[in-house]
Amino acid sequence: MAKTEYCALSEQTLNARIGQIDQVSNYLGGDPKSWDVKEVGDGNLNLVFIVTGASNALVVKQALPYVRMVGESWPLPLYRATFEHHALSRQAERDPGSVPHVHHFDESQALIVMEYLSPHVILRSKLIRGERVEGLGTFLGNFCARTAFRGSEFSMASEAKKADVGVFSGNVAIPAITEALVFTDPYYDAEMNNHNPVLDPVVEKLRSDVALKVAAQRMLQKFSSNTETMLHGDLHTGSVMCTDTESRVIDPEFAQYGPMGFDVGMLLANFLMSYFSQPAHRDPAELAAYQAWLIEQIISVIHQFNREFTRLWNSERTGMLYPTALFEDQGHSSADALHSTLSAIWEDALGICGIEMHRRVLSLAHNADFEQIEDVDKRGKLEARNLMMGRDLVLGRSGADPEQVICDLAARYNKEEVV
Amino acid sequence: MAKTEYCALSEQTLNARIGQIDQVSNYLGGDPKSWDVKEVGDGNLNLVFIVTGASNALVVKQALPYVRMVGESWPLPLYRATFEHHALSRQAERDPGSVPHVHHFDESQALIVMEYLSPHVILRSKLIRGERVEGLGTFLGNFCARTAFRGSEFSMASEAKKADVGVFSGNVAIPAITEALVFTDPYYDAEMNNHNPVLDPVVEKLRSDVALKVAAQRMLQKFSSNTETMLHGDLHTGSVMCTDTESRVIDPEFAQYGPMGFDVGMLLANFLMSYFSQPAHRDPAELAAYQAWLIEQIISVIHQFNREFTRLWNSERTGMLYPTALFEDQGHSSADALHSTLSAIWEDALGICGIEMHRRVLSLAHNADFEQIEDVDKRGKLEARNLMMGRDLVLGRSGADPEQVICDLAARYNKEEVV
Repeated sequence: MAKTEYCALSEQTLNARIGQIDQVSNYLGGDPKSWDVKEVGDGNLNLVFIVTGASNALVVKQALPYVRMVGESWPLPLYRATFEHHALSRQAERDPGSVPHVHHFDESQALIVMEYLSPHVILRSKLIRGERVEGLGTFLGNFCARTAFRGSEFSMASEAKKADVGVFSGNVAIPAITEALVFTDPYYDAEMNNHNPVLDPVVEKLRSDVALKVAAQRMLQKFSSNTETMLHGDLHTGSVMCTDTESRVIDPEFAQYGPMGFDVGMLLANFLMSYFSQPAHRDPAELAAYQAWLIEQIISVIHQFNREFTRLWNSERTGMLYPTALFEDQGHSSADALHSTLSAIWEDALGICGIEMHRRVLSLAHNADFEQIEDVDKRGKLEARNLMMGRDLVLGRSGADPEQVICDLAARYNKEEVV
Repeated sequence: MAKTEYCALSEQTLNARIGQIDQVSNYLGGDPKSWDVKEVGDGNLNLVFIVTGASNALVVKQALPYVRMVGESWPLPLYRATFEHHALSRQAERDPGSVPHVHHFDESQALIVMEYLSPHVILRSKLIRGERVEGLGTFLGNFCARTAFRGSEFSMASEAKKADVGVFSGNVAIPAITEALVFTDPYYDAEMNNHNPVLDPVVEKLRSDVALKVAAQRMLQKFSSNTETMLHGDLHTGSVMCTDTESRVIDPEFAQYGPMGFDVGMLLANFLMSYFSQPAHRDPAELAAYQAWLIEQIISVIHQFNREFTRLWNSERTGMLYPTALFEDQGHSSADALHSTLSAIWEDALGICGIEMHRRVLSLAHNADFEQIEDVDKRGKLEARNLMMGRDLVLGRSGADPEQVICDLAARYNKEEVV
């Protein structure tokens, strides 16, 4: 495709335009006119096509110049595709095999042609259907630990890391969405918010809680003024695709630099929302076992994150932070330094986790886990548990053991009648 | 001066080259050939000339492509003059009158022509001589609070602040100096270090203190991965010029984004080093009163920082952080949010303060306050007090009241025989 003015693709125009890219065309195989094209974008922002040729299939993802779920009234820069492409390259280096392979990138068209993951489906759908994925927690714990560590000055040379911070500083519009929708809007009656009216008394309680708002804003300050590592930035269960035995992370267009605990905290929140929503999705006979499996995945994410971070700390700590010159080379163990680093990461992660549990119920973009529950009273009871646990996490995370605090609160609120 | 290849100025070449800049030439007055030129750079990095014409005088500061105090073996990019120019402009906006006025900037020559401050002298020299400056603490408290607040997303629009972070992300070499010399080198036997041999037992103690090293590295991580505000970056008493009644801040070539507590913490450390060094500079009859005056300036910096930050919080909180929409507009006071923000700033500041007290005695660049004490035993006794207080600050700062902890520790160590 020539570097021409941006033009959104459609199922009708895609074959002709993508057919001009030799590399893509050869891989798909056959006459471009015969390719099968399906627009499948069910997300909030982009066009996503599955294109099937004679030999292979690919995904074509194209950014739209506005927020798809809202419309042209909310413009959003196309350059986000460039940052998504940057992020996919870096993630592929830092955790090989964890993200779809990129076949072609066209900056002017804000378009990425990438591996078609099949028979993978969105993890969130699998969790709503009560399906299990082998090795899920381990995969996600590794992804979070590897991208966090290898994108930071624990590992990278400072020049390279700082240059990359400069590159990502151009991505302003996307972080601005997170900043408002995640950290601020849930805690007051913001214009684009919506919530289940059953929750009114709980919402009133949260929005009158000054300590909660202070803690959420403190996390916002950290999120917006921190460049510890390159984040995925939107790592929920809708950004993970799985078969029953294999997982991949997709959609890093919200990539930015930020605190190392951000991705893993947001991810755990989405497992917890699945957990709290399960009474509406499972037969009573299956419920306890499936919720236990979800908790197992949470524990597994935490354990594997710690394990892999520790492994990288001991084997790849080549950056300027906590240098071996200061510890091991002096005959001093760096175990305390590692412990203090992990504590700080988990303190941030638990804060983000609680805030994500709030914003997905109170702000603009809700989760299917709850949204697919038609009975609003039933839904409200489950959402309320989730909101209250979120509050406890945001306020009580200092020095907490993440596994213990999450497991205890989840078990407790799962039985509680909040509304 | 034409945009030509960089060429370092000398007392011999300056008149002819600077004489070509009309704006500068008109301001200085008279025939450029008759201008008096004196190279007065006593710092570590640059050429500094005072140029006196028929009508006025100006300062011409030019970056050298290497570290002046070390030599050509340590190259340093000329672009630091550009960042100094950026910083001077921003500081002049954020705290009008606090920095020298810039008359001319030439990027290709890494050269800034600026206001000649007279009869100002470097604050550090005044403190060594036992002189007082009226309103010093208030001026510096205001400078730190105004530049911290107005350069952050408490005040700035996020787009503007993030674009500026992008601009400053190009400044890599200068932060790298701070990262190594300030945060890491003091805590092991780094190549460029030097210290008074009298201190050996104390140095051994500090360098075996794993908790101290962990805390210093945690601060390094914060310093290198934080973009809360634009810092001066090198705010010691050699970066302040004063008459007996007026003060200005100079030399922001170490400007970078970082934690809001950095500048004020480094500044207080330099007052404390002056305090601990005074027994070698003052007659016993004057000593107590002068040390008391120094402590008054420290208290005044802290009080004025808090007062001015509070005033700006209440009158200029227009950025996305802690928005009034979430607090005042809901009938909720933001006093707790302010308190938590100030606590976090002071926790960082006390950490930086302690680390600065270490690096100025143990790392490459020492302070005249101690260096001018010829008797190494006497000097060592005073330096040792300073080192031990630095340790207590780094390790005991969580939740501390800055005024109380600094005053208590200073009074205590001022009497203690550490070596």
